[in-house]
Amino acid sequence: MSDDFFATDTHSTGRPDGSGIRDLTITDRWNTPLQKPNGGYILAVMLRGLAEEVSAGGGSDEPMVASITYFKASVPGPAELHASVMRAGRRVQTGEAMLMQGDAKIAHLVASFGHKEGGHTQELGTPPALPDPDDCVDAWGDDGKPAMSIAERMDYRLAAVPGWVTGKPSGDPTAEVWIRLAGGRDSDVFASALLVDAFPPPIFELGHAGSLTIQLTVHFHGTPAPGWIASRITTRHVLNGYNDEDCELWDSTGRLVAQSRQFAMLVTN
Amino acid sequence: MSDDFFATDTHSTGRPDGSGIRDLTITDRWNTPLQKPNGGYILAVMLRGLAEEVSAGGGSDEPMVASITYFKASVPGPAELHASVMRAGRRVQTGEAMLMQGDAKIAHLVASFGHKEGGHTQELGTPPALPDPDDCVDAWGDDGKPAMSIAERMDYRLAAVPGWVTGKPSGDPTAEVWIRLAGGRDSDVFASALLVDAFPPPIFELGHAGSLTIQLTVHFHGTPAPGWIASRITTRHVLNGYNDEDCELWDSTGRLVAQSRQFAMLVTN
Repeated sequence: MSDDFFATDTHSTGRPDGSGIRDLTITDRWNTPLQKPNGGYILAVMLRGLAEEVSAGGGSDEPMVASITYFKASVPGPAELHASVMRAGRRVQTGEAMLMQGDAKIAHLVASFGHKEGGHTQELGTPPALPDPDDCVDAWGDDGKPAMSIAERMDYRLAAVPGWVTGKPSGDPTAEVWIRLAGGRDSDVFASALLVDAFPPPIFELGHAGSLTIQLTVHFHGTPAPGWIASRITTRHVLNGYNDEDCELWDSTGRLVAQSRQFAMLVTN
Repeated sequence: MSDDFFATDTHSTGRPDGSGIRDLTITDRWNTPLQKPNGGYILAVMLRGLAEEVSAGGGSDEPMVASITYFKASVPGPAELHASVMRAGRRVQTGEAMLMQGDAKIAHLVASFGHKEGGHTQELGTPPALPDPDDCVDAWGDDGKPAMSIAERMDYRLAAVPGWVTGKPSGDPTAEVWIRLAGGRDSDVFASALLVDAFPPPIFELGHAGSLTIQLTVHFHGTPAPGWIASRITTRHVLNGYNDEDCELWDSTGRLVAQSRQFAMLVTN
């Protein structure tokens, strides 16, 4: 067994019967403080499985855009991914997949795939203005990592320890953070699906206890260059107990590799 | 027949057989310059039909979040919406729907519904700083409205005629515009689904010929107050021939009523 936990834990095996059902195991290595598997990990598992089904059908395995709706927290253990191709166009191929554990629907994914090469590029955004990772601090300051297994799988570097970590929420629900898989394993496009949801939500800076993601949409822009990923996470709208959360991932060459938005339900103290 | 074209043209009729199939007619009253029905209109039709199916199953008819994937341009004429409830949770109910014309899949929608009332609100965004609508100009300046039927269905007011309309793209792919259904018919939440995609894309300001939406995700925040809606539309990332487009809709009381993001394929000259 490899110690590349990301590759191991996002693997699923297609059944030879052409049913589109894939078998997999959700591990306990990506748990949040609620001791449930992280939503970005669930997206990565589902997207990688759906990519294999779409590409087996003659389509591309390169995700362009994915939307996941979360129904119920998963539990570590066996699961089935029920995948199907909805439409195989020339430039874009779209599939959907439902993650099941027993009779329970865990999450539903729709994703479009296609090979993007060439084409016009004009970047009007800018990457986070973070100090060099070596000049940054770990997210958790002197308190040590919190009791969640995903913190063992990820490396984080920030200009300063976030206010909420030290019990002093800043009032500004934004975060800029270097992020990578622990030990520096290079990210692929499926790791981007994890990384957009792998840092604690910035609504902690508003003093809220957390946020449960209902829906997450990600735009993908290919394989990141090796190295740290600069992530910018922002909440701007908290309305009637629900909040948005935007995330951008920029690779070490300053190129945007993913952009995401969540619709989430606020957890109040 | 009412001359409330929005109500008429987004209506669909559920079959009594419990199949979840709804019959409808796509009209030619919401065509873009390509003489195809506008994508926001298609979303409004589908979302309203799915809301009726979800609410017939005991769920809420109030959309929270919707993601649509466009497969093929629709044509004015009969269509079927194949809708089903995926999961009916206590607080959130989620369904999906495929729009069919003959054997052709036109678009696929996943949407979550739920009643939002009370709950924490903290708005960190701000509405567009537009002059009073009476002090604004129509989008088309002295040239008259372009040859597209949707322009007859909508009213637009801007601080100035956009650069691209006069053949001088500004280089800044943003727009702030007052928008409403023609004649001032008040918007409901389904009209928000139309309005997020009812103004020409700001990538025109970069000199591009257009943009085909692949995927559109909308967060909904209830029924707008009567009156004009202030819309802010922005493209920030043009990457390998694809672009994003964000839209916010703010009602006349300064409240955010919808927030959307598109993933689109650039049409080059």
